[in-house]
Amino acid sequence: MELVRRARGAVMPASFWHDPLIYQGGSDRFLGPCDDIAADPAWGVDFEAEIAVITDDVKQGTGPEDALGRVRLLMLVNDVSLRHLIPAELEKGFGFFQSKPASAFSPVAVTPDELGAHWRGGKLHRPLLSHLNGYRFGRPEAGEDMTFHFGQLIAHVAKTRAMEAGSIIGSGTVSNRQGDGQGSAVSDGGRGYSCIAELRMIETLLHGKPRTAFMQPGDRIRIEMLDGNTQSIFGAIDQRVVPLQG
Amino acid sequence: MELVRRARGAVMPASFWHDPLIYQGGSDRFLGPCDDIAADPAWGVDFEAEIAVITDDVKQGTGPEDALGRVRLLMLVNDVSLRHLIPAELEKGFGFFQSKPASAFSPVAVTPDELGAHWRGGKLHRPLLSHLNGYRFGRPEAGEDMTFHFGQLIAHVAKTRAMEAGSIIGSGTVSNRQGDGQGSAVSDGGRGYSCIAELRMIETLLHGKPRTAFMQPGDRIRIEMLDGNTQSIFGAIDQRVVPLQG
Repeated sequence: MELVRRARGAVMPASFWHDPLIYQGGSDRFLGPCDDIAADPAWGVDFEAEIAVITDDVKQGTGPEDALGRVRLLMLVNDVSLRHLIPAELEKGFGFFQSKPASAFSPVAVTPDELGAHWRGGKLHRPLLSHLNGYRFGRPEAGEDMTFHFGQLIAHVAKTRAMEAGSIIGSGTVSNRQGDGQGSAVSDGGRGYSCIAELRMIETLLHGKPRTAFMQPGDRIRIEMLDGNTQSIFGAIDQRVVPLQG
Repeated sequence: MELVRRARGAVMPASFWHDPLIYQGGSDRFLGPCDDIAADPAWGVDFEAEIAVITDDVKQGTGPEDALGRVRLLMLVNDVSLRHLIPAELEKGFGFFQSKPASAFSPVAVTPDELGAHWRGGKLHRPLLSHLNGYRFGRPEAGEDMTFHFGQLIAHVAKTRAMEAGSIIGSGTVSNRQGDGQGSAVSDGGRGYSCIAELRMIETLLHGKPRTAFMQPGDRIRIEMLDGNTQSIFGAIDQRVVPLQG
């Protein structure tokens, strides 16, 4: 994380380790799990593989442990991000908007009891698999290095408002520290990454500049999680980038 | 605006006049027009009187003029804000979250044709009336000093995503320049303000510190717009602040 921080040239706020950093995303419209991502490649199209929960009603002021009991379903997310639009947007001070277009979710959402021991302590303990154009891009453990469990995230949201049944809370991009903090690619025996931006930061540290391009028209991202070695838990998100329609 | 900027101690980004500054709000749950606002007074409870539109489906890439044709309904909003939570939250860089809890909308939303000549150029040209504890707090013209019309705001949103029918876009707090830029209260013959924070900034400029408190338990805010002098167009938002339930 320290290296990633340096690569970003950003100073992490002191609150990072005790105060969840959550943003609000659009919810009027989502992409289906196999829908195309229509975007201008100049925007820096990236995927972000994440876990999300769907809550029941949550009362205002609910604490982290009680909040965990309000988790009704889990699923996978591709939180599509437009990297080249992010800096100017965050510079304006009000957070993401154009840079975080519609997200896609896995075809299946499952109840927590179906996950058995993989769901514990408010985290989902299985590798999250990302394949970019058929190559294994990431397999980090979704339960490791998650700073706050889902009950803590929900409690953060519910501090000043009640939440309605059906609310979706994402985990943030799944990422593991991997030893020296620089991480390594799946092809090097590592756990890889859940977004291209993280790999590009590592490449910048190692080689002075990024080597991997963001997604181009025709590129495909597949996100999945297996129970054991073969059984897909949520089905796969499998999306292709296509040009904007004129 | 210049004075307000100085009072805030903030530098306005260069993009402010040509690039809309929009944030995403919660949409799982809204307050009814007469629902209580349950909040800790230590959070700095404020109202924000605004205009909002509800859109039809909007295709990705729709331009400002075409976007105006997608406006199906207009209404009033109280975009409740928790002022003392804002600085630390914006400092984190991802925008508002706990500081912008559920909003309340007017009991009636009207189609644009019902507004006649008051709805022109993508703006609603009528005074927006705010009464705090029965006193006239604001009556600014909603169509004046709105930097971007609603078509421009919708086009900004739709640049990277399609929008689903029923999407709500708010105008931002209605505020008029009022001559020397410092504005003046309704009791001084001015147009007043659509939130307490703006008055507090003016007071800070004039007296060195704010004199008006944010809302306390029991305080009431009423937001309304009249057609002519008597007929309420949208019905009134009329809300009371109550303590958090223990």
